[in-house]
Amino acid sequence: MRGDTDTSSLPVPNPLTVNGVPAWREKMAQMPTGVAAACSSDMFKSPACYTKPKAKRFEHRFSIEAKSRKASTLKNAARFLKNPGMISLGGGLPSPEYFPFEHLDIKVPTPPGFSSEATSQSGSVLRAGKHDIREGSSLYDLEIALNYGQATGAAQLLRFVTEHTEIIHSPPYADWQCTLTAGSTYAWDTCLRLLTERGDFILMEEYTFASAAETAFPLGLKALAVPIDEQGLIPDAMDDLLTNWDEQARGARKPFVLYTIPTGQNPTGATQSAERRRAVYKVAQKHDIIIVEDEPYYFLQMQPYVGKDAPSLPPPASHDEFIKSLVPSFLSMDVDGRVVRLESFSKVVAPGTRVGWIVASEQVVERFVLGFPQMVLYKLLDEHWGHSGYLDWLINLRMEYTHRRDALLQSCEKYLPQEIAHWAPPAAGMFHWIEIDWHKHPGIASGKTRDAIEEEIFLSAVDHQVLLSRGSWFKADSSVVEEKMFFRATYAAASSEKIDEAISRFAECLRDQFKL
Amino acid sequence: MRGDTDTSSLPVPNPLTVNGVPAWREKMAQMPTGVAAACSSDMFKSPACYTKPKAKRFEHRFSIEAKSRKASTLKNAARFLKNPGMISLGGGLPSPEYFPFEHLDIKVPTPPGFSSEATSQSGSVLRAGKHDIREGSSLYDLEIALNYGQATGAAQLLRFVTEHTEIIHSPPYADWQCTLTAGSTYAWDTCLRLLTERGDFILMEEYTFASAAETAFPLGLKALAVPIDEQGLIPDAMDDLLTNWDEQARGARKPFVLYTIPTGQNPTGATQSAERRRAVYKVAQKHDIIIVEDEPYYFLQMQPYVGKDAPSLPPPASHDEFIKSLVPSFLSMDVDGRVVRLESFSKVVAPGTRVGWIVASEQVVERFVLGFPQMVLYKLLDEHWGHSGYLDWLINLRMEYTHRRDALLQSCEKYLPQEIAHWAPPAAGMFHWIEIDWHKHPGIASGKTRDAIEEEIFLSAVDHQVLLSRGSWFKADSSVVEEKMFFRATYAAASSEKIDEAISRFAECLRDQFKL
Repeated sequence: MRGDTDTSSLPVPNPLTVNGVPAWREKMAQMPTGVAAACSSDMFKSPACYTKPKAKRFEHRFSIEAKSRKASTLKNAARFLKNPGMISLGGGLPSPEYFPFEHLDIKVPTPPGFSSEATSQSGSVLRAGKHDIREGSSLYDLEIALNYGQATGAAQLLRFVTEHTEIIHSPPYADWQCTLTAGSTYAWDTCLRLLTERGDFILMEEYTFASAAETAFPLGLKALAVPIDEQGLIPDAMDDLLTNWDEQARGARKPFVLYTIPTGQNPTGATQSAERRRAVYKVAQKHDIIIVEDEPYYFLQMQPYVGKDAPSLPPPASHDEFIKSLVPSFLSMDVDGRVVRLESFSKVVAPGTRVGWIVASEQVVERFVLGFPQMVLYKLLDEHWGHSGYLDWLINLRMEYTHRRDALLQSCEKYLPQEIAHWAPPAAGMFHWIEIDWHKHPGIASGKTRDAIEEEIFLSAVDHQVLLSRGSWFKADSSVVEEKMFFRATYAAASSEKIDEAISRFAECLRDQFKL
Repeated sequence: MRGDTDTSSLPVPNPLTVNGVPAWREKMAQMPTGVAAACSSDMFKSPACYTKPKAKRFEHRFSIEAKSRKASTLKNAARFLKNPGMISLGGGLPSPEYFPFEHLDIKVPTPPGFSSEATSQSGSVLRAGKHDIREGSSLYDLEIALNYGQATGAAQLLRFVTEHTEIIHSPPYADWQCTLTAGSTYAWDTCLRLLTERGDFILMEEYTFASAAETAFPLGLKALAVPIDEQGLIPDAMDDLLTNWDEQARGARKPFVLYTIPTGQNPTGATQSAERRRAVYKVAQKHDIIIVEDEPYYFLQMQPYVGKDAPSLPPPASHDEFIKSLVPSFLSMDVDGRVVRLESFSKVVAPGTRVGWIVASEQVVERFVLGFPQMVLYKLLDEHWGHSGYLDWLINLRMEYTHRRDALLQSCEKYLPQEIAHWAPPAAGMFHWIEIDWHKHPGIASGKTRDAIEEEIFLSAVDHQVLLSRGSWFKADSSVVEEKMFFRATYAAASSEKIDEAISRFAECLRDQFKL
C-alpha cells in the first residue's frame, strides 16, 4: 500500500489538477479491466495524497453488525485466478456469449453545447461494444459491464470519481478512499447499520430530508434535532446538546453520528459558510462525532443573488475560478478522517443513473461493500467529457440554476405579502424556504392552533392550484413543538413562467388566508 | 382493488397465456407513464387471478423493524398532483432538460437468431429517446427512466414481469404481487430484515450459496442446516428438526424462515422434484414456515441427460411444451401465500442489469420498498422480443446449457477415477457437485484429517492449473462436522474444450493424490 511508504525525503508532489490528470494517468499502474477486477482508490490517488498523515482510528464507533461482517469466502478464492494458465470451474459467472446485447449507443452533449438543441445538432454518439477491451478501443466494454462487478464498483468509473474527489476536495489525510454505491439513500442506510445500534440517538438538522429520517426510524433510532439558522447548523447549540447529554434521563448513550446537508439544505435551502463548517467540525472533534455529509446539491451552488435590477454576473472564467468559488466541504477540512461524504450523480447528471459514491477513510470504506449504469457514466464522463468537460457541464448547471433561483426570488419579491412572508435567498441547491408569520393569521382569535393554520394554508394553496411542501413534513424530531411555520418551494422542476404563476397563486392564497 | 370484487357469478376466466397477452393488454387500464408513477401488479394481473382465495395473514412473522416502517411522507403528498391544473413547487425532482442524454440505442438479437454471429447480421437496434412517450412512439422514455422512480420499479417493466409470472407460475391465490428489486442479494437482505430478529435461526440447505449465508450472519442470525440428498432438501429431516426444536437448549425461538434454492442448487446442482417440493411445502404448512425460494437457475433446467452415445433430444416443440417441461415452483403450489420467490435476470439476461423481482403476497410486497437498466430490459423484453421471443431465448439458453453440461459430464466419465469420484448429472443450473471418497486417501494412514485432505486436493488441483470450489466453503452451519467431501465445478464459464482440459487436469490431480 503506497500510504505506508516513507516519502519524507522526497520533494512534495503537486496536488492533482484537471490539466494534470493525463500526465498522471500515464505514470499509473495499468487499469484492471477483467470481470469483477479488484480495485481501490489507492490505484488512482496522486502521490500528493501520501505526504499527509493517516486518519485516526474509529473502530470504537462500529456497530455489532459491522464488526461481524467478514470478507466473502468466494471472493477470497479469486486470488488463485492470477495464474495465467489457470482454468477455473470454481466461480459461478455466467458466460458473456449469452448476454443478449451487441452494443449500446448513447447520444450526449459535447461541451460547450449543453442545451437540447445543441446536443441534437453537435452531440456525440458514444458506443460501448461487447469486446472493446480485447479490441483495444476502450478500457471498459459490455462484456465486463454486463457481468458481475466488484462491490467497490467498476475500476474505470472509480478512477474518475477518485480523481474528481482529489481535484475538488483534496482531503487532508492520506488513507481516504472512494467506493461506488447504488445512490445516497442506500449509502446512508449502510452508514447507520455500520455505526449505530437500536435505541441510539443521531444528530440531525431540526428540519431535514424526510427520507433520511424515515430510513433511520425503523432501525430503532431517534433524532436529536439540532437548532438551525439561515446558515444551517448552529455549532454552539450542538455543543450544548452534547455537553449536557444525560444518559440516564435520555435512556441512551451520547449521540456520535451527525447527519447534515451542508449545501442547499433540504428543505431549508441553507448553505453553511466555511467559517460555520469549521466551527461545526470543532464541535465534532470535541465530542468525537462522525460527520455524515450528504452533498447532492454541492454543485448547485449558484452565482450570488444580485436582485432584480443589477446586471447578472458572468460565469466563472476558468475551472480553477469555479472550484475556488465553491464553499469548502467538511471532507476538505477533515484532518481526522471523521467525515463520511455521500456523493450522487442524481442532481447533476440524472437520478436514473442510480450511481453515487462515498468518500471516507479506508477503515469505513472497506466496510461498505454496481455494471450497466456505470458504463453509461464512464462513457460520458471519462471517455467523452473528461474532467474538463464535466466541470464545463457543472458550470453550465450553475448558471441554469442561478437563472431559475433568480426567477423564483423575483416572483416572491413581486407577489408575496412581505408583512407575513420572509425568506433568505438560497445560495445553493433546489429549495427556497419561506417563513410565514402565522401569529398574524385571523384564525388565532377564534382559537385555531399553529398546526391547523399550516394545514389550512396548505389546503388553500391546493385550492389555488399550487403545491408547496409543508415545513412540518421535514421535522427531524416530530415531538418538538414548532414555534415557526415554513413552506418549501423548489425552482428545479418548473419553468420560470410556471414558477411566476405558482408564486402569484400562492400570494393570492396568503392574502385570502390572512385577509390582506 | 379488484381482488375485493365478488366475481362468483361470473364465468371463470381463462388463465393468461403468451398468445393471450395482446388481447388482455387491450382491455387493461392505461399504463401509468408519468415520472415516478405509482403502479402495482394489480393493474396487470388477468381476471383469472381474482377467482382465487386471498393469502393467509403472516404479519405475526414480521420483525420490529418491519412493523415500524411507515409510508413516505413526501410520496403521500403525490396524491395532490392528480389535479391537472396544479403547478407543483413541492417536490425535489430535477429538471429533465438537464439530463445529458438525447437517446440510447442497444443492439440485440432478433429471435430465433440468438448467436453473436446472427445478432451481428440480423440483430435489431432499439432506441429510447428522451420524449418518446410525449411523441407517442413508446410507453417508456429517457425522460422517465432517468428521473426518480417508484420503489416498485417502472410500471412498463413491472407489467412484463407480472404477466411472465402469471404465464409461468399462475400462483394459486389472488393477492400476489411482483415488485422490482436491485437483485436477489438485496432482496434476501430485505427478507431477513422483514422477518427475523437478532438471535433467530433460519433454515438453510446444509450446503448453500455462501453469499446468502454471509448476508445473514452479520444480522446475528444462525443457520439451522437441513440435510440434503441428490434431490435437495429432505422433508422428513426438516420436520424432525422443527418438531424436536428445544427453545431452552437452543436459546432461540423455533425457526420459521426457510431459504432454499430448489432448482440447480448452488453449490450441489440438485433440483427438487415436484413431489419433493410438495412434501417440503407440507412441512412448511405444519410448522408455519415462510419459504424464501431463490430461483436464479429456474430457466437453466436442461434437457434430460442421455449419456454419450444416445442421440441428443430435440428442443421443446412449443412454448407450451417448454413451460410444461419445467418443474413446478413453490410459488405455483402456494395456496397459503407463504412463499417469497426471488427472481433475477442475472443468469438468463446478464448480471450487469442488476434488476430482479420478487413475487409474494401483497402484505409482504408492500413492505419491500430502480430507471436506466429497467429501460434497457423493457426495450429488449417487451418492445422487441415480447413474451414469445423471451421464451424462445430461454429455450435457446436451455439448449446451450444442455450442451455444456453434457460436455462436462462426458469429460467426467472419460477422465475421473470412479473408484473415488461420484456424481449425479445436474438437471438444472450451472453447477456439478462431485463427491470424493476421502476415506481412500493414503494420507489417512499418517493421521491426516478430512479437512487437511480437502485442502491438499484443492491446492494440488491449483498446482495442476485447475480451480474448483471446495465444498466446505458452502456449509450453512460451519460448526457441523462433515462426513463427506465435495468439490463444485461450473460448466457456465468455460468452453467445452476448456472444460475437458480442466477435468483431465483434475483427474490427474486426483490420481496423484490417491496414488491411483
